[in-house]
Amino acid sequence: MHSLRVTAESSTNGVLERDFTVGDVPGVLWSPASDAADGAPLVLLAHGGGNHKKHPAMSGRARLLVTGCGFHVAVIDAPGHGDRPRTAHDEAEIAELFRARAAGEPEGPIVVRYNDHLAKLAVPEYQATLDALQQLPEIGTEGPVGFWGINMGTAIGIPFVASEPRIAAAVFGQHWPDVLAEKARRITVPIEFDMQWDDEHISREEGLALFDAFASKEKSLHVNSGRHKELPRFEADSAVRFFARHLRRSVTSTA
Amino acid sequence: MHSLRVTAESSTNGVLERDFTVGDVPGVLWSPASDAADGAPLVLLAHGGGNHKKHPAMSGRARLLVTGCGFHVAVIDAPGHGDRPRTAHDEAEIAELFRARAAGEPEGPIVVRYNDHLAKLAVPEYQATLDALQQLPEIGTEGPVGFWGINMGTAIGIPFVASEPRIAAAVFGQHWPDVLAEKARRITVPIEFDMQWDDEHISREEGLALFDAFASKEKSLHVNSGRHKELPRFEADSAVRFFARHLRRSVTSTA
Repeated sequence: MHSLRVTAESSTNGVLERDFTVGDVPGVLWSPASDAADGAPLVLLAHGGGNHKKHPAMSGRARLLVTGCGFHVAVIDAPGHGDRPRTAHDEAEIAELFRARAAGEPEGPIVVRYNDHLAKLAVPEYQATLDALQQLPEIGTEGPVGFWGINMGTAIGIPFVASEPRIAAAVFGQHWPDVLAEKARRITVPIEFDMQWDDEHISREEGLALFDAFASKEKSLHVNSGRHKELPRFEADSAVRFFARHLRRSVTSTA
Repeated sequence: MHSLRVTAESSTNGVLERDFTVGDVPGVLWSPASDAADGAPLVLLAHGGGNHKKHPAMSGRARLLVTGCGFHVAVIDAPGHGDRPRTAHDEAEIAELFRARAAGEPEGPIVVRYNDHLAKLAVPEYQATLDALQQLPEIGTEGPVGFWGINMGTAIGIPFVASEPRIAAAVFGQHWPDVLAEKARRITVPIEFDMQWDDEHISREEGLALFDAFASKEKSLHVNSGRHKELPRFEADSAVRFFARHLRRSVTSTA
């Protein structure tokens, strides 16, 4: 088992930010700067396609969870993203996506197959990252763990959560059911799922089919008017409240 | 124009409760006990079928809005409900509903036609109530007004909001599209809409069709797993945040 190696550390406005690696995979861990976070819940994030671990969507969600709930939050760069090298396969798939986009062809088939490829690499990386994070004394193995990833984060997160009994609650959204519905049927923890009613890439039927596939007894779907990239910012606040409801239960000490 | 006549007044835990009548229609107005509520937003509630103006679902929502947001909240008894007499037609429709329920027949057709009948009576009552409430100096005509009604409250609320330009934002849910979709197409204010994914009375297709009908540029659908009566309590908190987002903008003074 790889352990977590901290490569940089800083603290701003009550949030401790630690860059780390687990093996070759770079990540970042955000925690409350106070010691009160010992044993607090952990939420794993996964970023969207073309983004990276410190994209404002990631640091913004982390800030909400750390300062609002006293939780730990961690995210790693997906294969071919952020500080990680792109393979020839990555370059070819990205070129194909840009070609389809420029030609006005559907992006779905390319995104579905490329994200599935990346998920096969990323799932064991998320498992190893969680192993390493739980070795830290301030996280440990007792506190509940959540997962939050939209778009490519959902393509990675659904197979990860389906195979990972340590995840107690998850927020997903905005992906196609083709590869993922089968895996969603194995997920039973509470979920919140986001979709856009006027998504130009993912049809309503596809979005609803993926939500429907989850075996979770407690599941919520949040649909908003607007196109693919117009997911309202208040859905991040909603996700934070979702994690507060589901992860705080078993917390013994929070900030 | 009828004016509002206060018939009883009490104050508990910072909430001023005033029973009133407007003409023959009895209602209740909840307000912050402090004077700071002058000009604060007003949210009109409508109760569900078989319930009444002081059902715990109404007083509970009022408490969230009054103590959480500093808003005024008002609700009236629907025709044939609460302190109002039932007509022979009410008795016949209720008997028919109970007969269908006991026989395991669909309730939808009866609820749709009976609620449509009640809505035709209730819409002018809501308009007169709003007129009378806006005559109160602590409410006035400047503050924004919201509407919140689920089930029968949606059957009354959709035609009311479609014909009432004073409503700036509305929360609806859990009804059939048959009569209402046509009127929803005339509604353009922001809405939040609740439906249950496993509703034994309203099919998924019917619930989604009604949500889809709203012409609102900003609309959100909240779907939760569970049967008709299992709408999660956290949706009330979500509705309160929705009103806080949409009604607070133009507020000049809140508690």
